[in-house]
Amino acid sequence: KAGWSDLDVRAVDTVRVLAADAVQKVGNGHPGTAMSLAPVAYLLFQNVMRIDPNDEHWLGRDRFVLSCGHSSLTQYIQLYLSGYGLELDDLKALRTWGSKTPGHPEVHHTTGVEITTGPLGSGLASAVGMAFAQRRQRGLFDPDAKKGTSPFDHHIWVIASDGDIMEGVTHEASALAGHQELGNLTVIYDQNTISIEDKTEISFSEDVGARYAAYGWNVVEIDWRKDGDGATYVEDVDALLAACEKSRDATKPTIIVLRTIIAWPSPTKQDTGKSHGSALGSDEIAGLKEVLGFDPKKTFEVSRDVITHTRKVKARGKALHKEWDKRYAAWRKGNAEGAALLDRLVSQELPAGLDKAVPSFPADPKGIATRAASGKVLGALAEVVPELWGGSADLAESNNTTMEGQPSFIPASKQTREWSGGPYGRTLHFGIREFGMGLILNGIALEGLMRPYGGTFLVFSDYMRAAVRLAAIQELPVTFVWTHDSIGLGEDGPTHQPIEHLASLRAIPGFEVVRPADANETAAAWVQILKNAKPVGLCLSRQALPTQDPKVAGKISNVGKGAYILREASSGTPDVILIATGSEVGLAMAAADTLEKGKIATRVVSMPCREWFETQTKGYQEKVLPAAVKARVSVEAGVPMGWRDVVGDAGEIVGIDHFGASADAATLFREFGFTPEKVVAAAKRSI
Amino acid sequence: KAGWSDLDVRAVDTVRVLAADAVQKVGNGHPGTAMSLAPVAYLLFQNVMRIDPNDEHWLGRDRFVLSCGHSSLTQYIQLYLSGYGLELDDLKALRTWGSKTPGHPEVHHTTGVEITTGPLGSGLASAVGMAFAQRRQRGLFDPDAKKGTSPFDHHIWVIASDGDIMEGVTHEASALAGHQELGNLTVIYDQNTISIEDKTEISFSEDVGARYAAYGWNVVEIDWRKDGDGATYVEDVDALLAACEKSRDATKPTIIVLRTIIAWPSPTKQDTGKSHGSALGSDEIAGLKEVLGFDPKKTFEVSRDVITHTRKVKARGKALHKEWDKRYAAWRKGNAEGAALLDRLVSQELPAGLDKAVPSFPADPKGIATRAASGKVLGALAEVVPELWGGSADLAESNNTTMEGQPSFIPASKQTREWSGGPYGRTLHFGIREFGMGLILNGIALEGLMRPYGGTFLVFSDYMRAAVRLAAIQELPVTFVWTHDSIGLGEDGPTHQPIEHLASLRAIPGFEVVRPADANETAAAWVQILKNAKPVGLCLSRQALPTQDPKVAGKISNVGKGAYILREASSGTPDVILIATGSEVGLAMAAADTLEKGKIATRVVSMPCREWFETQTKGYQEKVLPAAVKARVSVEAGVPMGWRDVVGDAGEIVGIDHFGASADAATLFREFGFTPEKVVAAAKRSI
Repeated sequence: KAGWSDLDVRAVDTVRVLAADAVQKVGNGHPGTAMSLAPVAYLLFQNVMRIDPNDEHWLGRDRFVLSCGHSSLTQYIQLYLSGYGLELDDLKALRTWGSKTPGHPEVHHTTGVEITTGPLGSGLASAVGMAFAQRRQRGLFDPDAKKGTSPFDHHIWVIASDGDIMEGVTHEASALAGHQELGNLTVIYDQNTISIEDKTEISFSEDVGARYAAYGWNVVEIDWRKDGDGATYVEDVDALLAACEKSRDATKPTIIVLRTIIAWPSPTKQDTGKSHGSALGSDEIAGLKEVLGFDPKKTFEVSRDVITHTRKVKARGKALHKEWDKRYAAWRKGNAEGAALLDRLVSQELPAGLDKAVPSFPADPKGIATRAASGKVLGALAEVVPELWGGSADLAESNNTTMEGQPSFIPASKQTREWSGGPYGRTLHFGIREFGMGLILNGIALEGLMRPYGGTFLVFSDYMRAAVRLAAIQELPVTFVWTHDSIGLGEDGPTHQPIEHLASLRAIPGFEVVRPADANETAAAWVQILKNAKPVGLCLSRQALPTQDPKVAGKISNVGKGAYILREASSGTPDVILIATGSEVGLAMAAADTLEKGKIATRVVSMPCREWFETQTKGYQEKVLPAAVKARVSVEAGVPMGWRDVVGDAGEIVGIDHFGASADAATLFREFGFTPEKVVAAAKRSI
Repeated sequence: KAGWSDLDVRAVDTVRVLAADAVQKVGNGHPGTAMSLAPVAYLLFQNVMRIDPNDEHWLGRDRFVLSCGHSSLTQYIQLYLSGYGLELDDLKALRTWGSKTPGHPEVHHTTGVEITTGPLGSGLASAVGMAFAQRRQRGLFDPDAKKGTSPFDHHIWVIASDGDIMEGVTHEASALAGHQELGNLTVIYDQNTISIEDKTEISFSEDVGARYAAYGWNVVEIDWRKDGDGATYVEDVDALLAACEKSRDATKPTIIVLRTIIAWPSPTKQDTGKSHGSALGSDEIAGLKEVLGFDPKKTFEVSRDVITHTRKVKARGKALHKEWDKRYAAWRKGNAEGAALLDRLVSQELPAGLDKAVPSFPADPKGIATRAASGKVLGALAEVVPELWGGSADLAESNNTTMEGQPSFIPASKQTREWSGGPYGRTLHFGIREFGMGLILNGIALEGLMRPYGGTFLVFSDYMRAAVRLAAIQELPVTFVWTHDSIGLGEDGPTHQPIEHLASLRAIPGFEVVRPADANETAAAWVQILKNAKPVGLCLSRQALPTQDPKVAGKISNVGKGAYILREASSGTPDVILIATGSEVGLAMAAADTLEKGKIATRVVSMPCREWFETQTKGYQEKVLPAAVKARVSVEAGVPMGWRDVVGDAGEIVGIDHFGASADAATLFREFGFTPEKVVAAAKRSI
């Protein structure tokens, strides 16, 4: 039982009033859900979660994910009440320039916020990733501890809304959570049946509980509405608390379907779409305050008693932390090696000798596919970088994302004839769920210790694009491995051939697109990616690519600069510069042969990552692409968009601005103009 | 009962052998599913579907959607057997340049293919759209006919795979299909439990039947595997036929969960991941042929008896069509007005007087938001263009996508206090399911008569990007209405503010991005969009934008050219050209005032659609953007990517290359450099 005192009840009502006041002050926002979720969030922060407001980075803390990010006040007000650092003035500054209380919660911005949410479905899906990470971390550091006794045991708590449940990505992530038997995950689904178009019955009539049962979740239904009339509404927090506590010991994920009335007890706007996304208006707020026994003339009214009471969570958190510290110290004592690894991961340092750990590939005109090279690199990194783990959305063999010999991350009962493993395994199997994979990878990274990666075909980056953007917004060290990165994919045809994807991914702020030209560039790229620790897309070829001279193409320092001179013009001063990425570097090299034979001094620049090149000094950039050389040709099997900045008015762009076709790769490259002759002709036009 | 003769059985076995041979010949592809689905597809084409291979455009035909597009042979071989025009040589040319049999089925390319599939989940989701369209069309033309008696009654048949069912978008579309009680939709789910990573148990353990029951579907389970041993495998086609026939009269959508063994009866590769996506190899194929009583030395063996027998579907189709013609003629006789409308829709012509139907807005420095203008335009078009219909992914009021007074498309029992309507209504409610919306819109367009549109915030075009790409690949006349098209969205902050979206959508081949500058451009844009009948994204502002002089900005001929001179330089010969789109046109006009005051002759070009402008004559392009004027500034509240092509080396780009923030729009525009002063400074740098 929660055993709430009058002060607790007053605190919960204070939350409702603050939510209404804060939205009213700025004139826009989402008051309704924050009001009706007040007792839910208060219960989590005060009675359920193992948190310490004094230390937001506490390794043993439970995680809180507000999947309905539009109801950011639900989180901000609890952070204020429990003493994470937010104060009343921050609530007054809601949704204004420079405030700590932006429209949607933002990680790295507001103390206590674990994840940026808002795009619906994303919070819940990334919470599944956090639950993945918790299990993997426990397996890495403390696999033999009894359940609930390890300093690496913690729980993931989610509040989700009708919108989250409708989105396809929560289907994907929830199906995986059920499959993975994630007992460390609890979702409170606020079924208020109101969205922007008012009653959700207009578009939403599935039996959510039955659906989640079909995924293998524990389903608990708690109905505060009873017959749906606000007059009989009872916020039975004891039932909710019992369900939460039970879920902590579960062997499956739990969804608590909680039937609420949005904006309760707002006199006339409860249970309406208007209360979802608009300020209530001063009359309505006055009415609300009267119902709750607050002074209608005052705003942002918080009694000293209330705030003193609610901030006791700081003392309780400190005690929890202290108790945990003991267990943690005992663990460190018995696990020197694990402690050293943990210290490295916490400080976000890489192991020594990374550069030497990756394989080197001899020059070879036939070469191998960069996806195959990537697979070998991952295999070599497996022992050295235990924090690196990942898998594929059902394309393991095509994406070469499996570290050879590493066990699958899977309940023991779900191993198959092809894949062995266990709950603490390392190889991830996402099924055919690209978007879910993307957000799960984000969640793994948000836990703070691991370096996750996940693969699919480059063309299907479209399915997961919103996850990629959220990785970029949150600056998460996630590596998206995208293979089959051009028409070189061949026979599967236009639906499977990326055309616009390199450009469209480069357009995302803070995101890096890396497209290595050969096996050694691939190895160097992985090292640089690990060093940078940023969101990145690694685009790899299906087809074999010639391995260039490893003394040039294999140098991590070259690749890490984003662009470098792979082949200098015979004269030293180039007549023309060919700039290429990935599979087209070999084509540029072949064209350079012809041009040089025709006495045209040709430099070839390999440009595996434009974003990396842009961070180099002007001096280095000028060295690689001297302003004086206006004759330039870019070669990339993608849309021309974005290359004019590199080649300039006088330059030429060899690209493809239409969809592909179903045929073998060689035919497609020939038919679509990716031949040495076409590149030579473009170079001559440019000179 | 199907009552199959020995010839039918031989025909089905011929399908299996052809599938194996065709993949073996080209050396890659997906034989396994085509083999085990042979009796399923054969049953549909020979016994179930109301189709006429003599007339692929027959208005009364059932639709077939192969959601597992990788198994394209499943469709190609049936098209060959039933006489749609494919011949053995086409099967031999599978997945080769210029063939009628590309890797995945492509609409407009192969006779009898109704939809391009391949990206998993997309076929099933678009089939839901087809079912929407069938119901709307019936409501438009023949609402009072008894079920099954109207020439507008037809059924949608889908074959889907494990991968389709895992994808989030089928969750979204299936939830809507159940909600909409689409009795005209039957999905045969081929549960072979094999995907590329072999046994799907590694990532997939949900109870699919229970899940679909939770959506409100009829669920039929048919298990051909029994105990899972190939030796006891029985292809009970009678059970399947009975389920199909029953589903045709249903009041809900039906999913038939059919347990099969992939690649059955391949001797050693049945039930393996290897048979999913690789050629079986000559030994295995020889073994298969022996099992089935074919000559292991022959390839592509089809007996004359078999093909003569299977092509009887042509005669049966002709008879069905003839019988339908009678009902259709009777309908035409009684419905002159409907028949005239239908003729117009079939010929894809627009109603007369479209230009005059849209409202005109007087010049107004305060103006209105283009989303609001769009809402007024839609309202005005409602009566004139009955084929135009659409809605929003739960943002109706924000997207202004509701045609005032039009009923909702919804089962009568599911009307809400805010929305009235019925099964033949017009306003669509997609719930919070953007990707599902996109693919449903595509499906509506694929039915061939309707002009659908659907709205969400521009930032959430990311969620539906794969649907947008498929609209472009299939050249479908779908209008995606994307409002809140910049940081002008304001307080909701970076997760909701599009930055890279305009560029990344322009990167998609064959897709048009339209961003009107004011109310009159919005009206003109709608007219041009209807005329073009192509996939298009209409990007609209949240905030009010000044209404420019309607004699210039309101002209459809100007807007339809994609760019035009909104304000000529005082001197006639501009010193600098400012090129802007959407909400930044007003900013460019303000900057031009300042520049002209400083004696800098300034032209302002409004560029609502770059793709439209690119199709204009060189002469027109030169008139608007004379090559001699190198001083140019582009102004758009999005990433600079792509603008260098317009402004050239000497030009300046005013854009934003980082994520936004949570604050009011005016503050954001000021803080992020969208001010007349900054544009003026850029113009001076460029001169």
